[in-house]
Amino acid sequence: MLWSGWGDPAKASPLPEPVVGLLRDLLGVRPSDAKPLALDDVAVPAPKLPDGVLAALADAAGGDAHVRTDAETRVRHTRGRSTPDLLRIRAGEASDAPDAVVLPGSHDEVLAVLRVCAERRVAVVPFGGGTSVVGGLAPRGTDRFAGVVALDLRRMDALVSVDEVSRTAVLQPGLRGPRAEALLRERGYTLGHFPQSYEWASVGGFAAARSSGQASAGYGRFDEMVLGLTVATPEGPLDLGRAPRSAAGPDLRQLVLGSEGAFGVITSVTVRIHPAPEAAAYEGWRFPSFEAGAAALRRVAQDGPMPVVLRLSDETETMIGLADPSAVGTGDAPENGAPQGAGLPQGAGCLAVLGYEGAPAAIAERRERLAAVLRGAGGEPLGEGPGDAWAHGRFNAPYLRDALLDVGAFAETLETAAFWSGVPALYAAVREALIGTLARAGTPPLVMCHISHVYPAGASLYFTVVSASGPSGREVGHWREAKRAASDAILGAGGTISHHHGVGTDHRDWYAREIGPLGGAVLRAVKERLDPSGVLNPGVLVPPADGAQE
Amino acid sequence: MLWSGWGDPAKASPLPEPVVGLLRDLLGVRPSDAKPLALDDVAVPAPKLPDGVLAALADAAGGDAHVRTDAETRVRHTRGRSTPDLLRIRAGEASDAPDAVVLPGSHDEVLAVLRVCAERRVAVVPFGGGTSVVGGLAPRGTDRFAGVVALDLRRMDALVSVDEVSRTAVLQPGLRGPRAEALLRERGYTLGHFPQSYEWASVGGFAAARSSGQASAGYGRFDEMVLGLTVATPEGPLDLGRAPRSAAGPDLRQLVLGSEGAFGVITSVTVRIHPAPEAAAYEGWRFPSFEAGAAALRRVAQDGPMPVVLRLSDETETMIGLADPSAVGTGDAPENGAPQGAGLPQGAGCLAVLGYEGAPAAIAERRERLAAVLRGAGGEPLGEGPGDAWAHGRFNAPYLRDALLDVGAFAETLETAAFWSGVPALYAAVREALIGTLARAGTPPLVMCHISHVYPAGASLYFTVVSASGPSGREVGHWREAKRAASDAILGAGGTISHHHGVGTDHRDWYAREIGPLGGAVLRAVKERLDPSGVLNPGVLVPPADGAQE
Repeated sequence: MLWSGWGDPAKASPLPEPVVGLLRDLLGVRPSDAKPLALDDVAVPAPKLPDGVLAALADAAGGDAHVRTDAETRVRHTRGRSTPDLLRIRAGEASDAPDAVVLPGSHDEVLAVLRVCAERRVAVVPFGGGTSVVGGLAPRGTDRFAGVVALDLRRMDALVSVDEVSRTAVLQPGLRGPRAEALLRERGYTLGHFPQSYEWASVGGFAAARSSGQASAGYGRFDEMVLGLTVATPEGPLDLGRAPRSAAGPDLRQLVLGSEGAFGVITSVTVRIHPAPEAAAYEGWRFPSFEAGAAALRRVAQDGPMPVVLRLSDETETMIGLADPSAVGTGDAPENGAPQGAGLPQGAGCLAVLGYEGAPAAIAERRERLAAVLRGAGGEPLGEGPGDAWAHGRFNAPYLRDALLDVGAFAETLETAAFWSGVPALYAAVREALIGTLARAGTPPLVMCHISHVYPAGASLYFTVVSASGPSGREVGHWREAKRAASDAILGAGGTISHHHGVGTDHRDWYAREIGPLGGAVLRAVKERLDPSGVLNPGVLVPPADGAQE
Repeated sequence: MLWSGWGDPAKASPLPEPVVGLLRDLLGVRPSDAKPLALDDVAVPAPKLPDGVLAALADAAGGDAHVRTDAETRVRHTRGRSTPDLLRIRAGEASDAPDAVVLPGSHDEVLAVLRVCAERRVAVVPFGGGTSVVGGLAPRGTDRFAGVVALDLRRMDALVSVDEVSRTAVLQPGLRGPRAEALLRERGYTLGHFPQSYEWASVGGFAAARSSGQASAGYGRFDEMVLGLTVATPEGPLDLGRAPRSAAGPDLRQLVLGSEGAFGVITSVTVRIHPAPEAAAYEGWRFPSFEAGAAALRRVAQDGPMPVVLRLSDETETMIGLADPSAVGTGDAPENGAPQGAGLPQGAGCLAVLGYEGAPAAIAERRERLAAVLRGAGGEPLGEGPGDAWAHGRFNAPYLRDALLDVGAFAETLETAAFWSGVPALYAAVREALIGTLARAGTPPLVMCHISHVYPAGASLYFTVVSASGPSGREVGHWREAKRAASDAILGAGGTISHHHGVGTDHRDWYAREIGPLGGAVLRAVKERLDPSGVLNPGVLVPPADGAQE
C-alpha cells in the first residue's frame, strides 16, 4: 500500500494535462504541485510506551520480530484512507502515529496482547488493511493512556477450513480480499465480496465495519455472509454462531459486526461461500432520469429477478464517468448552490450497470427476464460496453483521488441509506448541503451520486464530491464544514449516517443522534463489560456519556 | 384462548376411542380421565401489591378499567403454553399468577407503567398472545419484588401505517397474527408470517421471541422481516431502524429481537410486506429416507429455486401423520431405547411438503423447475393431496395435544438448528437422549421429527414426543429429565438450544452455555443499563452472574 495514498504505487498515473485544465475551468482548481512529502520527511513523535511494555508485547505476540517501532512502520499505521487522513499524512503530519505495531499470530496471542494492553493502559487500534475512510483508525482521547499500539492482523491470514456440505468457510481476519478469494477459488468457491477497497481491505475489517460489496445484490452484505465469529476481548473470548439462524436470544453476532474494534478483535469468521461461477457478464442500461432509474431498481429489488451487480448513476455521475477521468468537463460549470446536471447536455440520462454470474445459460435466461422488466420501466439497453468498462475500472477510483490531490483538487465520498419512500428527499438534501456549503466557501463542487446497494425496502446513496481544495493549510477544516452539513442533512432527511463506510470517529457524533441517548448508553454498557479499561480503539464508534460533540 | 389449553374451546375434540386404545397398546398409556379442573377451582394466591400501586398503574395505563385483578384474568395470564405449563394449570396450580394485569394503550402508557413498576419494584411480565412454550411468561425469583404484574398489550392492536413505495408497514405489538394479516390483506398485502402459534400469538411476541413461520422459505423469519422497532424501557425509549441495512455500528435491532421482554417492551415494529399472492398451491413428495430428503432440501436451499413452504418429516412422523391422529399406531410398539421407525412398515419413506404462492403461471413454472430438482434428488411426486392436507391442518397440532393430555398421554415439542454438516449427528443425539431417558423411566416414547426451516448453510430440526405421562403428580419432573437430556444432547452435538421457540426460563441455563460466560455478561450489562431495577421478566433469558443452574 502506498504510504501516502492508495494501493500499488506502480499503478498510479498522473491526470492528463487536458483534465487539469478542465478542472481549472470547471471548478476553479488552481493547478499546483501538491505532491506529498517524502516518507523520510514525515515527523513521527518519540514513542512514549513505558518500560517493559515492548517486552511484554513481544512475549504476548510470540517474539521480538512481531513488535515494530521503526518510523516507516509507524507512519504506515497512522490513521486510514479518508481524504482528510491523506491530506494530513501527505503534509508530513503524523503526530498520532502509534508508538509501536504489534503483530500477533493467533487468537491466543491476540488475547495475550489485549491483556498486556489492558494491564498497562495502552490503547490498541486493531488494524487490518488500513482502509478506513471514517477515522476508524484514528482514536481520540489517547492522552489518557500510556501509549498507543496498532494491532496488525496480517499474520493471521489463513483459510482455516471449508465445509463443503454447509457451504461455509472459516477465514482468519488478516486475509486481504484477493487472497481470501484466491484461496477459495482453489477449492472451487467464491466469497462474492468485492467492495471498492477489495484489493487492500481485510476480512476482519469487512466484519468489523459491516462492509458491503459491489456484488451485494447477488451475494449480500458481509454482515449477511457471516454465520459465526470468534472474538478476543480484554475480558476473554467470545465464540458465536452455532447455526445459520437461531431464536436463542438476541443475535450477538450482530453486536460484534459493526463494532469497529471497540468491543474486541475478531479473530476468525465463518462465512457463507458459493460455487465459483462459470462466467460473468456486465451490461449497461440508460434511464431517462435518476428518478426513473431508481424506480426501475426498486421494482427489481422488490419483485426480482436480481442480478449480482445493480447500480445506477445520477445524471451528473453519468456525464462525468468516474471511471473515465478524460470525460471530466463535458458539462458547464455549475452555478453556486444550483444542482449540477442542469447545465449538462440534455438527453444523456442515467447509466445503470448490471452484472450477472453463473452458468452461461442461466445468465442468458436471467438477462432476458430482467431486460423485459427494465424495458417496461423505461430503460434502454446499451449493451455490454458500459458494463465491461465499469467492471474493468471498478477498483480504480481511489487511484484517481490521489491524482486529483496531486494537482491541488479535492475529492471525497460519503454515503447513506434510507427506505425507498425517503430516497428522493435524502438525495436532494445531501446534494443541497454539499453544494451550498462548498459554493458559499468559494469552492463550488461537482457532486455525483449513485445507488449501489438495493433492498426490497430501500437503497443506499453514494456521493462523490470534487472541488478545488480549501485554503492552503486549512483544507481539512474546509471539508469538515461541508461534511458536517452533509451529515446533518442525512439525519434530517431520515437516512442512516453510513450504509457501508462505518462510524469511526468521523461519524460518531451523528451516530449518537441516530441511535439516541439510550442506544448510546447500551453501547457503552457493552464496551465497559468487554473492555473495562477502555483501551480498545478509544473514541471510535461509542458515543461518550455526556453526549458532547468533540 | 382456552384457559387450560390451546385455542378456541369450540374447536377442541376428543381423541377417537380406537386411538386411545392404540396409545395404550403402543405406548402403555393407561386411559384415564385426566381432564382439567374447572376454572373456578383454580386457586390463585392473595394479591400482594403494596398500597397505591394499583392506583398508580391505573393512572399510567389511562384508567381503572385497564388494571384487572379478578381471579379469571389472573389465571389467564399465568405462565404460557408449554406442556408443563398446561399440566400445572390443569391441576389447578396457579401459585405464580400475576397480582394484577395492566393494559396500557400506547407507547407512552407503556413507558409510564414501566416507570411505576421500576419505582415500586414490581416485576413486569410483557404479555402478548400468551403462547410461550419455553417459560417466557414464567419469571423466576419474583420473591425479591413487591409483586408481579402482567403487561398485556392487547389494546395496542392497530395497523399504524403502510408505506406502499417501500413495501413496509408499522404494526402495534398487540395485533394477533390473523388480525394483522387481515388488515394488511385489506390493503392488498401480506406479512407472510404463519408460525404454529399464528392464530393466537401477537406481533410483539413474534419480534420478542424471534419467531419463524411455516412460510419462512419464502418470506423469511420474523427477525428478517423487522426493519424498525420502537421499544419502551424503564430508562426511556429506543427508536431503531432508519434504513433496511446500515453500517452505522452494531445492528441494535438484533439486540431487541429475541430479548423476550427482559430489556424492554416492543411498542411497534416496522416490517416488510408483500403484495398478497393471487394463488397458493401445496404438494407432497416422497423421499426414500430422511437422509435423502434432507439432502434434497439442502440442494434446494443452496441452489434454488425456493418454494415458500419447504418441510420434511422423518420416517416416524411420516408414518404417524401428526395431522391425522387416526393414523397413530400403524406401526409396532418401539423397543425400549431403540430408534423408532425400525419396526414400521418398510417403504413408506419420508414425506416432504412444498408450498407455493404467487400468480398461477409463476407457481406453475416454479413447480416445474423444482420438480426437476427433486426428481434428480430421488424424490417421487405425491400430488397435491398430502400438501393440501398439511395446509388444512397446519394450526391444529396444539389442539391434539390437549386431547392427548385429556386421556393421560403426554405430548411435547422441542427444536434446534445447526449447520448442514452437523444435522445428522444432531438428529441422532436428540432422538437417543429422548428415547433413552423416557424408556429408562418406564415411558418409552414415540419421537417424531421434521425439518421445517432451511437455509443455505443449515436447517432446523423440530421434534415431537408422545408417551405415557410420568407418575401421577410427578409428570412435570418426569418430563424435565428427558428435556434436560435432550438439551444437553443439543449442545453436545453443536446445535443451538432453540431455532424458533426462544429461551425463556426453560432454556436459560443451556443458553448460558451456548453463548459462554462473556456472552452472558454482555446480556447482563445491557439489561442492567435498560432495566437497572431488574423488574422486566426476571429470570427470563438473561443468565445469572454466578452461572448457577437453578
